[in-house]
Amino acid sequence: MSQTAASSKDFPSRTLSGFLASLRYEDIPATVIARAEDLYLDWFASALAGKGARQIGIIERYAERMGPAEGKSTILTSRKSSSPYFAALVNGASSHLVEQDDVHNGSVFHPAAVVFPAALAAAQDLGKSGADFLVAAIAGYEAGIRIGEFLGRSHYRVFHTTGTVGTVAAAVAVGKLMDFNTEQFLNALGSAGTQAAGLWEFLRDAADSKQLHTGKAAADGLLAAYLTRDGFTGAQRILEGAQGMAAGMSSDADPSRLTDGLGSRWATAETSFKFHASCRHTHPAADALQLLMQREGLSHEQIASVNTRVHQGAIDVLGPVVDPQTVHQAKFSMGTVLGLIAVHQQAGLTEFEQQALQDKRVSDFRGKVKMTFDNEVDAAYPARWLGRVDVETTDGRRLSAAVDVPKGDPDNTLTRPELELKAHKLIRFSQAASDKEIRKIIAHAWHLHEEKSLSELF
Amino acid sequence: MSQTAASSKDFPSRTLSGFLASLRYEDIPATVIARAEDLYLDWFASALAGKGARQIGIIERYAERMGPAEGKSTILTSRKSSSPYFAALVNGASSHLVEQDDVHNGSVFHPAAVVFPAALAAAQDLGKSGADFLVAAIAGYEAGIRIGEFLGRSHYRVFHTTGTVGTVAAAVAVGKLMDFNTEQFLNALGSAGTQAAGLWEFLRDAADSKQLHTGKAAADGLLAAYLTRDGFTGAQRILEGAQGMAAGMSSDADPSRLTDGLGSRWATAETSFKFHASCRHTHPAADALQLLMQREGLSHEQIASVNTRVHQGAIDVLGPVVDPQTVHQAKFSMGTVLGLIAVHQQAGLTEFEQQALQDKRVSDFRGKVKMTFDNEVDAAYPARWLGRVDVETTDGRRLSAAVDVPKGDPDNTLTRPELELKAHKLIRFSQAASDKEIRKIIAHAWHLHEEKSLSELF
Repeated sequence: MSQTAASSKDFPSRTLSGFLASLRYEDIPATVIARAEDLYLDWFASALAGKGARQIGIIERYAERMGPAEGKSTILTSRKSSSPYFAALVNGASSHLVEQDDVHNGSVFHPAAVVFPAALAAAQDLGKSGADFLVAAIAGYEAGIRIGEFLGRSHYRVFHTTGTVGTVAAAVAVGKLMDFNTEQFLNALGSAGTQAAGLWEFLRDAADSKQLHTGKAAADGLLAAYLTRDGFTGAQRILEGAQGMAAGMSSDADPSRLTDGLGSRWATAETSFKFHASCRHTHPAADALQLLMQREGLSHEQIASVNTRVHQGAIDVLGPVVDPQTVHQAKFSMGTVLGLIAVHQQAGLTEFEQQALQDKRVSDFRGKVKMTFDNEVDAAYPARWLGRVDVETTDGRRLSAAVDVPKGDPDNTLTRPELELKAHKLIRFSQAASDKEIRKIIAHAWHLHEEKSLSELF
Repeated sequence: MSQTAASSKDFPSRTLSGFLASLRYEDIPATVIARAEDLYLDWFASALAGKGARQIGIIERYAERMGPAEGKSTILTSRKSSSPYFAALVNGASSHLVEQDDVHNGSVFHPAAVVFPAALAAAQDLGKSGADFLVAAIAGYEAGIRIGEFLGRSHYRVFHTTGTVGTVAAAVAVGKLMDFNTEQFLNALGSAGTQAAGLWEFLRDAADSKQLHTGKAAADGLLAAYLTRDGFTGAQRILEGAQGMAAGMSSDADPSRLTDGLGSRWATAETSFKFHASCRHTHPAADALQLLMQREGLSHEQIASVNTRVHQGAIDVLGPVVDPQTVHQAKFSMGTVLGLIAVHQQAGLTEFEQQALQDKRVSDFRGKVKMTFDNEVDAAYPARWLGRVDVETTDGRRLSAAVDVPKGDPDNTLTRPELELKAHKLIRFSQAASDKEIRKIIAHAWHLHEEKSLSELF
């Protein structure tokens, strides 16, 4: 226990703030620093992938109308510069658009989409190094994930955690770049938490609010930190207080989660990468089919049928999608996802856009796939997402494969070559950078911990 | 019932949006237009009164750092110009600083502090007339007050209604300046409501969040409207939907309040002005003492004792303040408030700053004042705030006075001369404008409905 934690005036937000204030690059395991670089590349590519989308264009124009003509911070999709507030706003909005950014399962929180936009905009504005930036991002991840866990499942039922908690996580990251002490972190938490917003109601209408939530979370968190630096004060117990976030927006909050394993448990490294561009419920089966086909050297023509044994939730969500008519529906079609894996060896953004509905081999394969309920798989869920496939070949063989951890989860994380491939695919999808630039972006990410500056990104 | 309300696809947010879309200057009673001018002057003076405060200086610097060097919209306290986003942010923050801005009792909502900053910034940006501006402000008041009533008392227990509802009210006002149709108002409500934030936790630490709440509400509401104009979509039922504002932030929401008396009940005209710069619980007694002294021609030296008969809430809040040490405490001291009224004939910002603690005649008078519980007064509360004083004069007379509606409430509203006096006092307090400029500001307000432009304010 730290000295701060032993103080009689201590409370969870203060303990967390003390940890954030004292966090040093040297205290962070090298594997966590390297994972933060992985997460950074994955985020950068996700943010670029949003280029050209209608919603992002609207927010880019808003930034041009309301912000300065130029500044020290980069808007990734437009490659224009602005003040850090507007760079955080636009980059936050674009980060989550293709929904290929990272996720922390336990907190149901997408940290990259809110932490990196705020941290990058501020690091550029303040002239910070790559190492400073990585420590700041890790501070944002560590705080945000614990606050998400603290607010619990009841929060997520109505509130979009990445919007609400994201505001606080972004403030933490920017505050770390400003070398905040414990009191300043408390004030920044207060000013960020009292701005925390984001409701799921938009889902019912497929409205554009998800981009507003991530953009505003990054920008408003940054705002909280900049005000704090100039002496603006905030509530000391915005998280756990009697009229704070949990009091207003949760019925199962657990304050002990705010300080869980500070300094020993690295929540940053628990974050999952998304690999396939489809509904998460399809991923275990996709991984298992891919494993089986590679192991057996099978092509899609050699497969007569696939039975994938799944948990009930997968049947509930995916079962209704029998004949997908849109790309979005195709991402919820188990047969289409497995068809893309079988025919194209991958189910990324480009395959969904170009092949999921157009390629007759994929729709033919869809007809060979069925889902059946499996007791073992269902019992393990949601702690573990088990992938089980039974394949019958055209020459009559019966083959099976099992994957116990979906690709991208911490125990089966993406390798750097896999992350590079994903980055290439994401950025090519939106044509936001040339292949040469993508290679430079990748090299920059892998050397981030020794970069002196973040001013040149492309 | 309107045709919209009769539609089978109707729901409260849509009915409200239909009303807002169809609202025309000609439909609004002249008395309501005139009241909106009254409210505008009262707001303008309140916003200027925040000049020089530490919190406002920090937010002014933030606007300079993040925003453009100049623009079409005026930051009132600094007299600099910026884009409408930052003008709304700073003006919203300063509007509520001295807490002399208006309040709607039933919704516990301060409409001016959020509606006027957003509407003024957008009207200047869009080149709108005074009449357009007044209709927009009235639209914001009518919607915001009903949404506050809809969310109910449970919302106010944790959430700062002026922050949360204020975001939506500001979006409505700006949307009206943009001539939104019903669909656009629905989208703007959605994008504003999903940003709605503001928690009371800051009160425990006397932190600066109140200024952040009003500033952000005005600015974020404006943001929602500008995005909507460019085609950004929002949840259709952000207010009453299953994962909307009421679902997340209220336990006693009443959707019928959203459409209560649309087009016949003018909630704008129900808004109260603050007259004395003290806790509202002191106002009925202050009014009654003032009435008695004027009626009897008494000076403070002629008063031997004052007994004010009050409701229990007044005793709970004011009773502990026996010997005030700060200006803030003095505003919760019944004896000090009545002392200022008796000696200085008023209890405004300047009297509190310069006389409440310094003038021995005021503290001497404080010793002559007592509060006693009164059954009639207590039974009437909170629907009516009755003022009752019994005075004993130094020559042995026993005199009484009663005021049934505190000064500033709709049934005892401020006259234009009283509003002018209040405006002079508020602006002189912060020295934000010269007396000549104040006279121009007042003349501008009284002719607002025929002004062609709002570009010249001083």
